[in-house]
Amino acid sequence: MSITYPRGFRAGGVSAGLRRNGSPDLGLIVNDGPVRATAGVLTSNRVFAAPVAWCRPVLEAGTAHAVVVNSACANACTGPEGLADSRAEAELVGGLMGCAPEQVLVASTGVIGQRLDMVKITEGIHTAHAALGTGGVVDEATARAIMTTDTVPKTIETQVAGARFGGIAKGAGMLAPQLATMLVFITTDAVATHEELQAALAPAADVTFSRVDSDACMSTNDTVIVLASGASGVALSPEEMRAGLTEVCSGLARQLVADAEGSHHDVLVTVTGATTEKAAVAVAREVSRSNLVKTAIAGNDPNWGRILSSVGCVPVEVAPFDPDQVDVSLNGIVICRGGRIGEDRDLVDMTPREVRIDIDLHAGDATGHIWTNDLTHEYVEENSAYTS
Amino acid sequence: MSITYPRGFRAGGVSAGLRRNGSPDLGLIVNDGPVRATAGVLTSNRVFAAPVAWCRPVLEAGTAHAVVVNSACANACTGPEGLADSRAEAELVGGLMGCAPEQVLVASTGVIGQRLDMVKITEGIHTAHAALGTGGVVDEATARAIMTTDTVPKTIETQVAGARFGGIAKGAGMLAPQLATMLVFITTDAVATHEELQAALAPAADVTFSRVDSDACMSTNDTVIVLASGASGVALSPEEMRAGLTEVCSGLARQLVADAEGSHHDVLVTVTGATTEKAAVAVAREVSRSNLVKTAIAGNDPNWGRILSSVGCVPVEVAPFDPDQVDVSLNGIVICRGGRIGEDRDLVDMTPREVRIDIDLHAGDATGHIWTNDLTHEYVEENSAYTS
Repeated sequence: MSITYPRGFRAGGVSAGLRRNGSPDLGLIVNDGPVRATAGVLTSNRVFAAPVAWCRPVLEAGTAHAVVVNSACANACTGPEGLADSRAEAELVGGLMGCAPEQVLVASTGVIGQRLDMVKITEGIHTAHAALGTGGVVDEATARAIMTTDTVPKTIETQVAGARFGGIAKGAGMLAPQLATMLVFITTDAVATHEELQAALAPAADVTFSRVDSDACMSTNDTVIVLASGASGVALSPEEMRAGLTEVCSGLARQLVADAEGSHHDVLVTVTGATTEKAAVAVAREVSRSNLVKTAIAGNDPNWGRILSSVGCVPVEVAPFDPDQVDVSLNGIVICRGGRIGEDRDLVDMTPREVRIDIDLHAGDATGHIWTNDLTHEYVEENSAYTS
Repeated sequence: MSITYPRGFRAGGVSAGLRRNGSPDLGLIVNDGPVRATAGVLTSNRVFAAPVAWCRPVLEAGTAHAVVVNSACANACTGPEGLADSRAEAELVGGLMGCAPEQVLVASTGVIGQRLDMVKITEGIHTAHAALGTGGVVDEATARAIMTTDTVPKTIETQVAGARFGGIAKGAGMLAPQLATMLVFITTDAVATHEELQAALAPAADVTFSRVDSDACMSTNDTVIVLASGASGVALSPEEMRAGLTEVCSGLARQLVADAEGSHHDVLVTVTGATTEKAAVAVAREVSRSNLVKTAIAGNDPNWGRILSSVGCVPVEVAPFDPDQVDVSLNGIVICRGGRIGEDRDLVDMTPREVRIDIDLHAGDATGHIWTNDLTHEYVEENSAYTS
């Protein structure tokens, strides 16, 4: 169970023949209401794909009835023709669902710079529509239909104050060879307006998906969508709605990190003692983007010099602190104290998959974190393999 | 010939026993005048090593007589004790040369978070002082004394209007396991003041060393120093001085890129059609820091989607342009035109070591470039190997 765990939703995932191996590659999620409220967060990459361009006004209206999504082709860098393809998908789904094309969200993931095979897409949408249902099997097929190089489907479900939430996700940052994109689809049967959903989703995404920085690459297709059906009859408080969405986003984000391509370690970089949360996140992000830190972790090397050096690359106007006051802990061992050698590095156990880097700037009370991965041979292998 | 090609300089490189393999690891460069003008550029990392802290006021005074440099240990993250060690080196060299400690520059490169072995350093300085001389053998030993994981020494010499210039360098960004640092030492026998040298060095470094971005990691020890002896009696115009230093810096920067650890490709990212040079360099730097672009190049994959996607990550306030106007060429083939598919990617020959990425933003007349490298298995291997 996941996206049809909340009442008022049907879903379907089918193989439209877009992926060569015959795996599911086209999904349809339908909101049967009675409420049909939508919110979303889209990539901030200035080079964004056609489906992202299509979704912007649909999400602003905030009343989508359905989402259609495909893998294998990102429909990115495809010009006006690509946008026409996204519109054609919305028109077809709208026709089948009895709603306007402008009430259908479209998402794609896969190879950049390639047109969609609209013959297969059209057939796939009809098949998916015929297969619409609820329950574990349907949810699994839909979660699989959005996978590219993911090794496992990512799903979640939870309850807050009698309202149900479900979600599926694929990807982690932009990890695969031309197979871009993090896609996340969340459903809830809470009663909510577009504005209430958006107000809860934005901060939820900000402290979860926006703090996953697997390889610092932002995709052309990143899309997070939440649909509310109102079928539970339960209206949540703003705090409850935010709590529910944050729990779903947090759980899916953690699954994305755990399945990041070629990774051997999930790395949680936590910065404390910062002047502001923004400063803390900036320092954590700088560390999480250092290839020297990431390769050291791949080698199970508790190399605090590289961590401290990357901390020092953050400009003082972004994060004020005194480098001579900085402590760095690795998996609980304070190997750097006051900017200098701390406890014996041999005490650090680097074998667990989850690695915790804790940096105390001793400059304030704010904290922030980033999840990242190590940089391994497998990452290079998977991302340097010839396209096609 | 290199640093003693300009008249008025002596140098020495010896093995002080700091490196386990017995290679040269301590160098001394002496300016015999009659002029003794100095200028320098130091790392902007807020976590900077003791020798960098020592050099700051010495470079501000601008009248150094000598430089002492060691490899194997960076003397970084070593606190007040580390600074005392750098001072002790300067005092010893000053005593031998008959100048104040404040007229001696100190540089170190190697492992972070480890104290210098001052017994070996002291002995090495005496040996290097006794070995001071001029000519190819001496220069070669000095160039080798600053190497860490460099596979070849980097040297250059040139002439401008009768004044001679020479230089040696090590490293490329921060590439080796805890072996940080780019170190560059340049000599000239032109007649010049500290102010004239600094005015010429800063822009020269800005368009050369500052445009090498091998792995986006900034070291704690980066140091570029130029010494002028005035022994030629030739006073250069500001333009001539800048031309001479730019030629030396450019040549050494190119050698650093060519020897970057584990690299198979030297990649020149050139951005044209930008509104400003700063915007052009920002776009080039974003592309050069994309691990997805760098791994694609390692795999000889002309993956323009990743290039365009990284271009799109530059904020509009940094570089205004229309993504739908952007052209991308790879080794001369326009594989992306107007943000969409251009010529056949199979036409791109990715086999040469030097790869040229040309990006035309069609937004203005400014250009800028960054040199980088591909991201290979060997990079991961060399940087994930256990320290010790």
